[in-house]
Amino acid sequence: MHKKALLLGVDGGGTRCRARLTSWSGKLLGESAAGPANIRFGIEQSFAAVLQATAECVAQADLPLGVVADIVACLALAGASEPEEVAKARAYRHPFHKALITTDAQAACLGAHGGADGGIVIVGTGSIGWGTRHGRAYRVGGWGFPLSDEGSGAWLGREALQRVLCAQDGRIQWTDLLNALFKRFHSNPHAIVRWVAGAAPRDYAMLAPQVVQFAAEGDPVAEDIMRRGAGHIDGIATRLGLCGIDRISLVGGLSEPMMPWLSLETRAHLVPPRGDAVEGALHLARITALAIGAGETAA
Amino acid sequence: MHKKALLLGVDGGGTRCRARLTSWSGKLLGESAAGPANIRFGIEQSFAAVLQATAECVAQADLPLGVVADIVACLALAGASEPEEVAKARAYRHPFHKALITTDAQAACLGAHGGADGGIVIVGTGSIGWGTRHGRAYRVGGWGFPLSDEGSGAWLGREALQRVLCAQDGRIQWTDLLNALFKRFHSNPHAIVRWVAGAAPRDYAMLAPQVVQFAAEGDPVAEDIMRRGAGHIDGIATRLGLCGIDRISLVGGLSEPMMPWLSLETRAHLVPPRGDAVEGALHLARITALAIGAGETAA
Repeated sequence: MHKKALLLGVDGGGTRCRARLTSWSGKLLGESAAGPANIRFGIEQSFAAVLQATAECVAQADLPLGVVADIVACLALAGASEPEEVAKARAYRHPFHKALITTDAQAACLGAHGGADGGIVIVGTGSIGWGTRHGRAYRVGGWGFPLSDEGSGAWLGREALQRVLCAQDGRIQWTDLLNALFKRFHSNPHAIVRWVAGAAPRDYAMLAPQVVQFAAEGDPVAEDIMRRGAGHIDGIATRLGLCGIDRISLVGGLSEPMMPWLSLETRAHLVPPRGDAVEGALHLARITALAIGAGETAA
Repeated sequence: MHKKALLLGVDGGGTRCRARLTSWSGKLLGESAAGPANIRFGIEQSFAAVLQATAECVAQADLPLGVVADIVACLALAGASEPEEVAKARAYRHPFHKALITTDAQAACLGAHGGADGGIVIVGTGSIGWGTRHGRAYRVGGWGFPLSDEGSGAWLGREALQRVLCAQDGRIQWTDLLNALFKRFHSNPHAIVRWVAGAAPRDYAMLAPQVVQFAAEGDPVAEDIMRRGAGHIDGIATRLGLCGIDRISLVGGLSEPMMPWLSLETRAHLVPPRGDAVEGALHLARITALAIGAGETAA
């Protein structure tokens, strides 16, 4: 039996992964989301999320789960910029006909510029800058929490919590943001210390929306954190610019709220993304399928 | 048989613990050091270090190990400012006749001021400010890594590593410090990312001496980090000052190299410590022994 492969694109971030299933002709068959898929925090958890999202797509398409073996997938995963993690992910026994593993950054860049030269800065649970120019890829930041990922949701949340403890000490003034965050921990600094012991980047990132909200309302500490975070995003964009990448899309869950805090210089280079990282992943899935001949016949 | 208790003072920090054993009359019987004893990173590891140091003291005193059951100890441990950790430590089945568990900060303050009003700022693997005035204790910072412990060895090391990755990205210029640190990781940013996954505060703190050294040689990044770290120590001292504590001793392994970077305002309030945290712990051990009558007879 000759049949064309199904294509699956997955954008796996630090807080959730999104998946889209299409026919070979590009018809959308299913679309879904599941939990965190950053492979730095566990291959098993990452693939569990990917497979849950895939199963949901297949169910939406009214297809039997067995068609997974006909799928050519591109799994664009946060953390896949680390060689050791990628090697582990590539060795993982997945059920797809073929799965290309790449970074969420590469897929986001491809999705945003449709394959043309350009760059992206992801501002989500983590942060990273990525760009391509004349066939060469450039990467800035995104080395993960806690050393890098500046300006990301996890970074904003951590900066805010640090200041809650400073206010508790009397080192800085309490503000509405700090009071609101402190209440989440029953106004107990020891509860924060306990929480930190088990906190993943996505846990810190869950605090970011309150920073965004209070900054919009003029809270001085929240404004200061947003300004510093934006300074880091500016720094990433500036570095991409120095690499000759002058069309940059801001993507990720915090890209919208971060926008007004960026420098005019950065904003002058921003272009809206043509498509999202899942589109980019679907594009890479198609190229992969063509390379292995799966566009013609599935194994 | 009636005999007076032996006294043991232990100062347990994030990188090592130091112990001193004396007779009831105050005669030094033994003195030793062992590994990290911060109880936030495991009660078992903390007590293992404490008991190793104790056994060494007993051996130096030419006493049989069984005398441990006659010892009244004060274990002054980093991390003991956390109620849950202290509860676990107090429930631990130790071999001493009696063991008082307290913070390294309280013992350091008592040791530095001999029981008089005053404050300390510990600049070691972690950092914390502590002071007493009119019988009341004040605490500033020291909520642990990665949210707090600003200006500490772990903090200095992390700040430096963050900048190594920024230099790798081309976001900042390489300096001698950054090159030297990068070489420790075989000039491979992915090696840093892997290292971070298992790094404890003491691991970051092991990088601090290089920051200190390169700052003394005029490395601009090292100077910037020392200046920022000192700014945090100034902030802790300032807060203690606002609590009415105007005699402050800087203690801990990084107190000497931090000194020249502090503000004149902070330095104007510094006094040399009368004794160290182990002395403070020995003082508390004696008070404990008196309270339970162990100064008269050991059980």
